[in-house]
Amino acid sequence: MTYMETLGQRAKAAAPAAAKAGTLLKNQALSAISEALLKNSAYIIAENAKDLEQAVQNQMSAAMQDRLRLDESRIQAIANAVCKLIALEDPIGTEDKGWVRPNGLRIRQVRVPLGVIGIIFESRPNVTVDAAALCLKAGNAVILRGGKEAIHSNTCLVSVMREALESVGLPADLVQLVEKTDRETAAEMMKLNGYLDVLIPRGGAGLIQAVVKQATVPVIETGAGNCHVYVDASADLAKAVAIANNAKTQRPSVCNAIETLLVHRDIAPAFLPHINTAFSAHHVEIHGCPETQRILGDGVIAATEEDYAKEYLDYKIAVRVVDSVEEAVAHILKYSTRHSECIVTQSMENAEYFQNSVDSAAVYVNASTRFTDGEEFGFGAEIGISTQKLHARGPMGLSALTTIQYRIIGSGQIR
Amino acid sequence: MTYMETLGQRAKAAAPAAAKAGTLLKNQALSAISEALLKNSAYIIAENAKDLEQAVQNQMSAAMQDRLRLDESRIQAIANAVCKLIALEDPIGTEDKGWVRPNGLRIRQVRVPLGVIGIIFESRPNVTVDAAALCLKAGNAVILRGGKEAIHSNTCLVSVMREALESVGLPADLVQLVEKTDRETAAEMMKLNGYLDVLIPRGGAGLIQAVVKQATVPVIETGAGNCHVYVDASADLAKAVAIANNAKTQRPSVCNAIETLLVHRDIAPAFLPHINTAFSAHHVEIHGCPETQRILGDGVIAATEEDYAKEYLDYKIAVRVVDSVEEAVAHILKYSTRHSECIVTQSMENAEYFQNSVDSAAVYVNASTRFTDGEEFGFGAEIGISTQKLHARGPMGLSALTTIQYRIIGSGQIR
Repeated sequence: MTYMETLGQRAKAAAPAAAKAGTLLKNQALSAISEALLKNSAYIIAENAKDLEQAVQNQMSAAMQDRLRLDESRIQAIANAVCKLIALEDPIGTEDKGWVRPNGLRIRQVRVPLGVIGIIFESRPNVTVDAAALCLKAGNAVILRGGKEAIHSNTCLVSVMREALESVGLPADLVQLVEKTDRETAAEMMKLNGYLDVLIPRGGAGLIQAVVKQATVPVIETGAGNCHVYVDASADLAKAVAIANNAKTQRPSVCNAIETLLVHRDIAPAFLPHINTAFSAHHVEIHGCPETQRILGDGVIAATEEDYAKEYLDYKIAVRVVDSVEEAVAHILKYSTRHSECIVTQSMENAEYFQNSVDSAAVYVNASTRFTDGEEFGFGAEIGISTQKLHARGPMGLSALTTIQYRIIGSGQIR
Repeated sequence: MTYMETLGQRAKAAAPAAAKAGTLLKNQALSAISEALLKNSAYIIAENAKDLEQAVQNQMSAAMQDRLRLDESRIQAIANAVCKLIALEDPIGTEDKGWVRPNGLRIRQVRVPLGVIGIIFESRPNVTVDAAALCLKAGNAVILRGGKEAIHSNTCLVSVMREALESVGLPADLVQLVEKTDRETAAEMMKLNGYLDVLIPRGGAGLIQAVVKQATVPVIETGAGNCHVYVDASADLAKAVAIANNAKTQRPSVCNAIETLLVHRDIAPAFLPHINTAFSAHHVEIHGCPETQRILGDGVIAATEEDYAKEYLDYKIAVRVVDSVEEAVAHILKYSTRHSECIVTQSMENAEYFQNSVDSAAVYVNASTRFTDGEEFGFGAEIGISTQKLHARGPMGLSALTTIQYRIIGSGQIR
């Protein structure tokens, strides 16, 4: 039995304890984890320092070092996030539907845990705790595979969580870390059929594509967002500027920020100068179509096909003038990654056409795409934002970490 | 652009027409397909004869030849099955949930088509029509890849369906057949990311495992059923015999038939002779544990580990005496393929324990496992029975061929 199979077997053996644990016991575990993180913060910071020392030696970028760093206030924030899960409704045991068949069979469709969830992520140690706590609240065992840059931090965080689980009488193996951070072990994890019920990659496009290509276990793809705002001819000008500006500049590094702005020809001369002013306060670099260049003049770079396909994740945007809502939809269908799109319009007809025609996880009328987020949707914490169509789409809350089971009661029925 | 990419692009271009088609138009298409099949039955039978001729030359088994054969009455049955879909409720546009956020955003979770569905199947030509019609009713485009043994039949059936689609004004490319039946093309289909939203294999365990191992597009695994009936100490004897006998012998070749019978020690001496009598009417071969052998005497073959893990799909069964409901559950957790299990009991406590502890798609109390079926659950026709936990579990009706989209209406909200 290989190292990964051993982890898989342990997770599978532990999983029923989480599945059977009531909400009270799972909440006790979350509370114990939160307290243990705070109590062990000196130990966690000391272990994190080893990773940071290594990072300096490896000349890791300052931004990456910052993502890796844990301090008192960050540990407090991680512990608080775990505590917040206590208040979330427990999906397990919820009856989605129930009906009686003509032969008297009573069928109930009930939410049950997925079982064993694998998470592959990069070097942010907060994901380690966050993902484990979410999986636990939904009644699952989890196998975590973080980056080797954070191995000391992750080992320490996982050992703190495992102790906390045992302190409330749950098996430590509900939370396991893949301590071998080589590529071969990761590749084996992606093919751990029979043990892993689902694998969720959290990180950049490279990681996600590697998992999608290699995995033989079911994967939930998260991530890339080439999102659009379309300003319709009938748009309220002030709202259009506020929404487009917010969607681009409030936090450009995230997947629900927009990358291309589409503007109807009739409103372009009035709208573009206003959004240009708003963008220039953030030094947003505009890549525009010829019509955008004509209206805004100097300072607009000519947009290319690559610009329309690109997820900048930066203070850069492509701007294109279109002749109709149909042309806007066609552009989106061609370039979008099916994450989030918005139409700003006063026309009920165009709003409905847009929502019916755009094939993305979230389609907004008159609101910023930045709302595509578990907290903003009211789901509480999220494990990620699914950009695939199977199982979960858009922000994934606790119920995305569950599956269904049919429970049937009969009185001797046969076929 | 490769052959498969061309098919993918055509399907993707056609899909929006199915997504936007109302229920009425989709039902007209189903009706047109059904009529066209009947009208063209002579042509279909003639094309099918070419496959049968080839089958004889290739010395295909009589059973396989029978599965491949189309005649008037089978074409009538296929056409009737398409007609039956007309009466099924259209899942598209259904609102699963709707809520308003504190900031006034109105969020609706709406059912939309998956988009482009791939189906890989073996030599039964009825699947060709059945799968296409289900995908269509759920608003999807479909790419069908059948076995090379049925290529003449499938080409003909698909061309009849494509003409019928055009006759009601829908694009023919909503239904396409992969006419190249080589393995390389099939392998390419499994990696058609960007075109296929999901791939569903329908067939034997070999086909399904090949798809699970090779595919990089999302897959819904269907199939294997190592199902169990557990006869508890408190079981009603007559019901236990009827259920176990029905679950084994009514149709042993299907995935919801049972392969192992577990019997509580206290009821074994009373129960086993009765079920033995019922089984012997069907010449069921019993592979029993030592206690079963002791009670039933000669004619019981000693059961091995392999017997407990095997899906016989035949008039064969493993029988094991256990000491408790806990031991029965442990056996099932060890050997089951998580399809369907049943407890026969008069004890409410044991019924509840069994349903809470067994991690299978369908868990029965006092009813035959043979009910795990789309029709029997009241879903109407099914595209298959999912044995994985993501997206769909158990019998998959029309709604398994849809996904969700969040449609959000605001009045200028930003973050």
